[in-house]
Amino acid sequence: MSEELIGNVLVAQSGGPTSVINSSLAGVINEALNHECIEEIYGGVNGILGILQEDLIDLAEESQQSIRALRHTPGAALGTCRYKLRSQLDFERVLQVFEAHDIRYFFYIGGNDSQDTADKISNLARERNYPLRVIGIPKTIDNDLVSTDHCPGYGSVIKYISTTVREISQDSQAMGQHDLVQILEVMGRSAGWIAAGSALAKRRDHPNDPPHLVYLPEVAFSPEKLVEDVRRVLKKERYCFIVVGEGLVDGDGNYVTTEGATDAFGHSQLGGVGDYLKSQIEQHLEVKVRTNKLGFAQRAAAHCSSLADNNEAYMAGEAAVRAAVDGQTDKMVTLLRGETDFYSCETGLTELGEIANGVKSLPNNWINEDGVSMNYQFFKYALPLIQGEVEVPFENGVPKFAELSFVRVNKTLDPYSVP
Amino acid sequence: MSEELIGNVLVAQSGGPTSVINSSLAGVINEALNHECIEEIYGGVNGILGILQEDLIDLAEESQQSIRALRHTPGAALGTCRYKLRSQLDFERVLQVFEAHDIRYFFYIGGNDSQDTADKISNLARERNYPLRVIGIPKTIDNDLVSTDHCPGYGSVIKYISTTVREISQDSQAMGQHDLVQILEVMGRSAGWIAAGSALAKRRDHPNDPPHLVYLPEVAFSPEKLVEDVRRVLKKERYCFIVVGEGLVDGDGNYVTTEGATDAFGHSQLGGVGDYLKSQIEQHLEVKVRTNKLGFAQRAAAHCSSLADNNEAYMAGEAAVRAAVDGQTDKMVTLLRGETDFYSCETGLTELGEIANGVKSLPNNWINEDGVSMNYQFFKYALPLIQGEVEVPFENGVPKFAELSFVRVNKTLDPYSVP
Repeated sequence: MSEELIGNVLVAQSGGPTSVINSSLAGVINEALNHECIEEIYGGVNGILGILQEDLIDLAEESQQSIRALRHTPGAALGTCRYKLRSQLDFERVLQVFEAHDIRYFFYIGGNDSQDTADKISNLARERNYPLRVIGIPKTIDNDLVSTDHCPGYGSVIKYISTTVREISQDSQAMGQHDLVQILEVMGRSAGWIAAGSALAKRRDHPNDPPHLVYLPEVAFSPEKLVEDVRRVLKKERYCFIVVGEGLVDGDGNYVTTEGATDAFGHSQLGGVGDYLKSQIEQHLEVKVRTNKLGFAQRAAAHCSSLADNNEAYMAGEAAVRAAVDGQTDKMVTLLRGETDFYSCETGLTELGEIANGVKSLPNNWINEDGVSMNYQFFKYALPLIQGEVEVPFENGVPKFAELSFVRVNKTLDPYSVP
Repeated sequence: MSEELIGNVLVAQSGGPTSVINSSLAGVINEALNHECIEEIYGGVNGILGILQEDLIDLAEESQQSIRALRHTPGAALGTCRYKLRSQLDFERVLQVFEAHDIRYFFYIGGNDSQDTADKISNLARERNYPLRVIGIPKTIDNDLVSTDHCPGYGSVIKYISTTVREISQDSQAMGQHDLVQILEVMGRSAGWIAAGSALAKRRDHPNDPPHLVYLPEVAFSPEKLVEDVRRVLKKERYCFIVVGEGLVDGDGNYVTTEGATDAFGHSQLGGVGDYLKSQIEQHLEVKVRTNKLGFAQRAAAHCSSLADNNEAYMAGEAAVRAAVDGQTDKMVTLLRGETDFYSCETGLTELGEIANGVKSLPNNWINEDGVSMNYQFFKYALPLIQGEVEVPFENGVPKFAELSFVRVNKTLDPYSVP
C-alpha cells in the first residue's frame, strides 16, 4: 500500500446513461464512507461540464434511502454531458477546481471518450505534481470498451431487448400468416453487441425461435440478401422477426442510413435503419412490415434490468474506491470473468491509456456463416450477463426512482465560461 | 335461471392481442370446469378463421400449469385473426361447425369488430332455432368499447407506457440542456385513450413532470401550435417530452400521416407520426429531436402489465361463462366501476348489438384547455387501472410464457375454403 492520501472524493458521470450507471455511483458513495482518508464525497453535476463550472454537490447530505434508491434508478442521477474538454485551458480549470475543493480522488463513470478525458486529467495532475488518484468506472450499453470482459450497462439493455423480442413474438405468432415481418431497431453505433444480444430471446434448443434475422454492423449489408433472408424465413415460419442495429454499413463501410447530424465527438447521429429495411422489403415482397424502435427506452429500462449487471455495476464502483485508496491511479476498473464453466466475475484494473478510444468489436467467429445469427460462443458469453431481475418499487402504478436533494458545495472560484 | 343447456364450450380470440387477453381465456377455462352442463372445452384456432376451417383444440388436454401460465402470457394463445366473415355462406358454415361439435356456448374475446361478428352469429343461431349462448368478452388496448367503464388490456398498455415515459425522462433529465425533445409515438387509431394514459407518469402534485405535451386525435393538430408548445416547454424545462397517438388528425379530420394501406375492415394503417412531428419541430427550432416508437411492444409487454387489469380480464372470462350458464346470450361482459371514492370493479352485461361498431371517445372535458394535457377527471378515471404489478417468471434471463400443446379436435366436416 502506498502513502495515504487524505482529501475529498469527486465522482461524476459522463456520456449516455444506462439502467445501472447509478448503481456504480451508489457503489462509490457507500465504499467511500468506509475509508478514513476520505473526508468529503462530492458529485460533479453534468459530468466534466459541471466540474468546469465548479458545480458540485455534497453527496453526504443525501439520505441513505436516496443512495439505496440509486441502485434501481435509470438516467444519470448527477447529470451527464457529452462535452469534450476543448483546450489546455479547460484542463487547467479542472485542476484548479480540484485544488479549490481538495479533490484527491476522482472517479469518472463513462465510456471511451470519458475514460480518455480521465486519462488526460490524470496526466496533467502528474505533470503539475498535484497528488490525485484517478480511476475510471466503465459504463456503456455498447459493450465496446477494450480490456474488460464486458461493460456494466450491457447486460441490462440486452435483457430488456430479449424480453421485448419474446413478447412481441407472442403477438406476431398469434397474428402471423407467413406475411408478417416485425423489425426491431436497436442501438449500437460501431459494434453489433446490442443487436447480437437480442438472440438471447431464443429458448434453449429452439434455434428457430425469434429473432430470425439479426443484422449487425460487423456484416456488410446487402438489400438483395435481406430480401432473400426474409423470403426464406417466411417459407417456414408464421412471421419473420428482424433485429437491426442502427450502425448498419454497406460493403464500402458507409452507414446505410444517417440522419446527417454529428455529435461533439464527430460521430454520426443515426436512426431510421428499421424504416430503411422496411422499404427495401416492401419493394420486393408482398408482406406487411411493422417497425418498432425502442429508442431511449432500451438504455433506461430499469424495470427490466439485469440483476447480474446491476450487481457488477455496483461492484465496479466499490472497486474503484478501494483501488484509489490503495494507491492506484490512472486506471479503469475492468470486469474479469472466471475461468470455470460456472460464471463468476471479479474486478481488475487496466491502464486508462489502453482503453481510451479503443473499440472492442463483436468477434467475427461468434457470428454464424449465414451472417444473421449468433453461435454458441456468443450465447456462452452473453447469457450470464442477463441473469436475475432487479426489484424496482412502484408507487401509484409507476416506478419510484431516487430523488437527490442536490445540496450545492459553495463556489470559491471565479466563474468559467463554457459553451 | 333458464333451462339448462348441455353441451360444449368454444372460446376464441380475435383482433390484436393485449397483454391480458390470455388471462380472460384462463378465466373462461377455469370457470367452465365448474359447471356440469359443460362437457368439452374447445378453443378455436386463429379466431373465426380457424372456426370456419373446423380447426379446434381440446383445452381440457392442456396442463394446469399451462392454463396458469396463460395469466402472464402476452399474444393470443389460441391465435387470432382480422378476418371478417364475408357472406351468409360464412355464417352458415360457422353454425355447421358448431352443430358438428355440439357447441352450445360460444365465448369470443375481442374488440368492436369481433363483438359485431359474435352478434351476427348469435342472431343466426336464433333464426335457425339452434340453441346457443353467445357471450362476448371485451378486449382492446384502445379502450374504445361503449357500455363498459373500461376495457381489459387498456390498464396494462398505459402502465407500460407511463413506466417508459418515467424511465426515458430520467435519461433525458440527465442529458437535457433545454435543447432536447423526446417524442414517444404510441398506438391508438381512433381515440386518444392510450396517449392520454401516458399522463399517469406524472407524480402526484408534480404537474410539470413529463410528458409535457400529449397530442391526441381528439384535438385538431396544428404544426404552428406544436412549435409554440415545444418552445414554451423548453423555456422552463431541461427537455421536452412529447407523447403522440398514431391517429393524429388535422383541422379537416384527415390523418396527418398515413402509410396508405388499409386492413380488412377498411381502417388505415398508420405509423410514422413521431417522425412527422420531428420534422415539423426541426424545421423551426434549433433542437435535437429523438423519436421512440414502442410499436407492438406496448400491447405485448406482459412483464410490465397491470395487476388490476390482469385480474379484471380474468374476471371478465369467468363472468362470461357464469352468465351463459345462467341463460344469458347475445351479451358482452362489461366492467362496472363502484360509486364510492375507493375504486372497485365488478362485471355487468350489455347487448352485443349495442357495442358493435360503437366507439367511445375520450371525453373532451377531461382534456385541459391547452389541448396537450389531461385534467384530474382523467387521472381519477385511469389511475386505478394501472395499480399493482404482475409477477412474470423468468427463465434464463427472459420471461417464460405458456406453451399450449394444441391437441386438435377431429374434423368431421368437408374442408371449407377461406382466402
